[in-house]
Amino acid sequence: MSEHKGYKGKIHDFLISNKIKVGDLVKVTSELTYSGILMPRYESGDENHIVLKLKSGYNIGIEVEKIEKIEKIGEGQSKIESSETIEKDEKLPKILLLSTGGTIASKVDYRTGAVTPALSASELYEAVPEIAKIANVDAEVLFSEYSENLQPQHWLEIAKKLDSMAESDYTGIIIAHGTDTMHYTSSFLSFALSGFPIPIALVGSQRSSDRPSSDAALNLITATKFLTESKTKGIYVIMHNDSNDDAIACHKGTRVRKNHTSKRGAFETVGGNPAFIISDDKILKNMNEEFFKSDKYEPKLDLDSKVALVKYHPGYDPRQIKDLADLGFGAIIFEGTGLGHVGNTMYEVIKNAKEQGLFLGMTSQCIDGRVSMTVYDSGRDLLELGIVPLENMIPETALVKAMWAYGNSSNADEIKELMLRNIASEFSFE
Amino acid sequence: MSEHKGYKGKIHDFLISNKIKVGDLVKVTSELTYSGILMPRYESGDENHIVLKLKSGYNIGIEVEKIEKIEKIGEGQSKIESSETIEKDEKLPKILLLSTGGTIASKVDYRTGAVTPALSASELYEAVPEIAKIANVDAEVLFSEYSENLQPQHWLEIAKKLDSMAESDYTGIIIAHGTDTMHYTSSFLSFALSGFPIPIALVGSQRSSDRPSSDAALNLITATKFLTESKTKGIYVIMHNDSNDDAIACHKGTRVRKNHTSKRGAFETVGGNPAFIISDDKILKNMNEEFFKSDKYEPKLDLDSKVALVKYHPGYDPRQIKDLADLGFGAIIFEGTGLGHVGNTMYEVIKNAKEQGLFLGMTSQCIDGRVSMTVYDSGRDLLELGIVPLENMIPETALVKAMWAYGNSSNADEIKELMLRNIASEFSFE
Repeated sequence: MSEHKGYKGKIHDFLISNKIKVGDLVKVTSELTYSGILMPRYESGDENHIVLKLKSGYNIGIEVEKIEKIEKIGEGQSKIESSETIEKDEKLPKILLLSTGGTIASKVDYRTGAVTPALSASELYEAVPEIAKIANVDAEVLFSEYSENLQPQHWLEIAKKLDSMAESDYTGIIIAHGTDTMHYTSSFLSFALSGFPIPIALVGSQRSSDRPSSDAALNLITATKFLTESKTKGIYVIMHNDSNDDAIACHKGTRVRKNHTSKRGAFETVGGNPAFIISDDKILKNMNEEFFKSDKYEPKLDLDSKVALVKYHPGYDPRQIKDLADLGFGAIIFEGTGLGHVGNTMYEVIKNAKEQGLFLGMTSQCIDGRVSMTVYDSGRDLLELGIVPLENMIPETALVKAMWAYGNSSNADEIKELMLRNIASEFSFE
Repeated sequence: MSEHKGYKGKIHDFLISNKIKVGDLVKVTSELTYSGILMPRYESGDENHIVLKLKSGYNIGIEVEKIEKIEKIGEGQSKIESSETIEKDEKLPKILLLSTGGTIASKVDYRTGAVTPALSASELYEAVPEIAKIANVDAEVLFSEYSENLQPQHWLEIAKKLDSMAESDYTGIIIAHGTDTMHYTSSFLSFALSGFPIPIALVGSQRSSDRPSSDAALNLITATKFLTESKTKGIYVIMHNDSNDDAIACHKGTRVRKNHTSKRGAFETVGGNPAFIISDDKILKNMNEEFFKSDKYEPKLDLDSKVALVKYHPGYDPRQIKDLADLGFGAIIFEGTGLGHVGNTMYEVIKNAKEQGLFLGMTSQCIDGRVSMTVYDSGRDLLELGIVPLENMIPETALVKAMWAYGNSSNADEIKELMLRNIASEFSFE
């Protein structure tokens, strides 16, 4: 690795004149004072920032123009170690890192400002060498997609890969994943891999790993720590708890939602606390009940994605859903209003869908809280039409579960039975 | 009014034997000790609870079996005054109360447990006599519907009624409304009645007004106080700030969402603080910018509800939206993932919709945060296809605004112009 890898032009000159090399521990006085290791850069075209990895594992970018003073305070590390050269410590637990793409595996092209998924799993590992002190990590790229482009067939591919690891000697598995649909994937894996013998952590980042203020490194380090130490089972999403680095949250994969477009603590457990909080190197367990409702590993690796999510609103034109049976749809998950209602203008099309054998489930667009369809006349009417209330299941989780249930059933009654069985904490009672 | 109105059977005997009449100030020792005025009841069949109105204006129900002691501590009020008999104080400001239905105007039928919308505006006023000390209230029933059954034509009817009051001598107008779709209605009124000269408060309740723990009275009293004292303009939703009675929140009608199915503080301002908090009889203003972006009253009382709200998810089958143009739809509001994305499986149907002249707007299903479509390739692709990013407009608000814009435009460019014009704080910059 070059002594100034990724630094070019005036910033390269600046480093040379200050006798600073990539890997050196430096102290930088700018608007604030930072100490950290000078990181290599992989993007081109940015001649304004140096990137430091702080002790927390967190990368920050500092504008060169604002640097008042920079001094080397520690010997240059022999190198930022690459995964090929890291000596594995056979006493450490083994972790598998599967990369699917997303920001956590992205690089910023500073010329266009755009982010592209490019970093391989081993590059990721190289970028966060702290992981090597916690576990021996095997890295593998499954695919390299933004998560908005992941489809149910990708979920299946991930699930099959994981299923093939059920008897392995890994202590846990990390899935590096884009954040846009990470909670959809975590839901599917929770149902498809019910009772999976080792814990699985989906990890993403809201800012790419070579970017100032990236959350990638800390999320990955914490996930590795969690998988090796928590002695639990289940499918979790591991991300920043809020906008600072003090705490990382570990959410049950069926109870989590991306509730903010951009902030680092975008993921929240709906209607409760995260299952675990990892802070100050301690893992605090908040879970009252185990993730899986059965200890037995019972994979069900099928799905049929022809399920509609219908968010009701005033003015909803029922013609939008009248042909679903003809298109081969097997279920409709409603995001009703309030306690689980839709307007009475919908009753006829609902009645038809029911007669055509579709499963009809009700959740609430309020997101938080429980549907309750016996309080008002409207709810009672819908119950009579055959709509099944799904308690406090998150709409997105209900949708994914219905796709999974439809793929593993031969009729609406079987779908209903699966939908109402609490498999992976999708119904919560906190 | 009967001395024991609504109390029957053994509970009626209990009141007689304790010499307690409706309207008496009583002290009740049960699990806790309460003092308040014994309220009349309007439902039949419940022989287990008495209802007290506490000093806060809040009604609670107390199970008779658990009452250890009950004593009269104040003279019976001459009566719970009815609106017909309340003497108007001509020095007080005038408020108009329009009732549209909903829980705030509902009665519980304790035989079936169901709630039906029944209480008229004047009954409401009678049930909350405190209002008469703050304002002279004229009450009128517009209709009596659960808000899940309200449709855009109801919004128009409300808007036209309000428009006819623009030159009146009312200080403000209360709209009693069901909570399920209250935020959709408040959004529509905000656009249709841009610059309306007096403040309008939509008020609902999560528990019906003759029910233990109802929030109806305090929300109504606070709204009346707000309208008479705040000297502001705009369309607001006024509800409990959280689960206790300490603070009532006043949300901008375009920035508010029902985020919980059942709790009293279900409504939240997305991505910011409520515009006002009313606590301890004080009105605290949080708003940095005025509600309306123009001072001029410019009603635009049209709408066309043929707008689709498409919540994208993995596995979304684009056939679900391919016929929208044929059905006469003029716009699609996407609830994309993350910063405003949909999978590339959607590109073709989006391209067709654009060619057919539909307006295409992007919001985020994260609800909170701003869409930003220049960060990732996916967003850039969608911008090229002609999708218009709608910043941090709430998806439901964007849907309603698009219905309004479609009704007031003759083509997609005009819709776009209206959609991007900040009319009633639907774009926020807090």
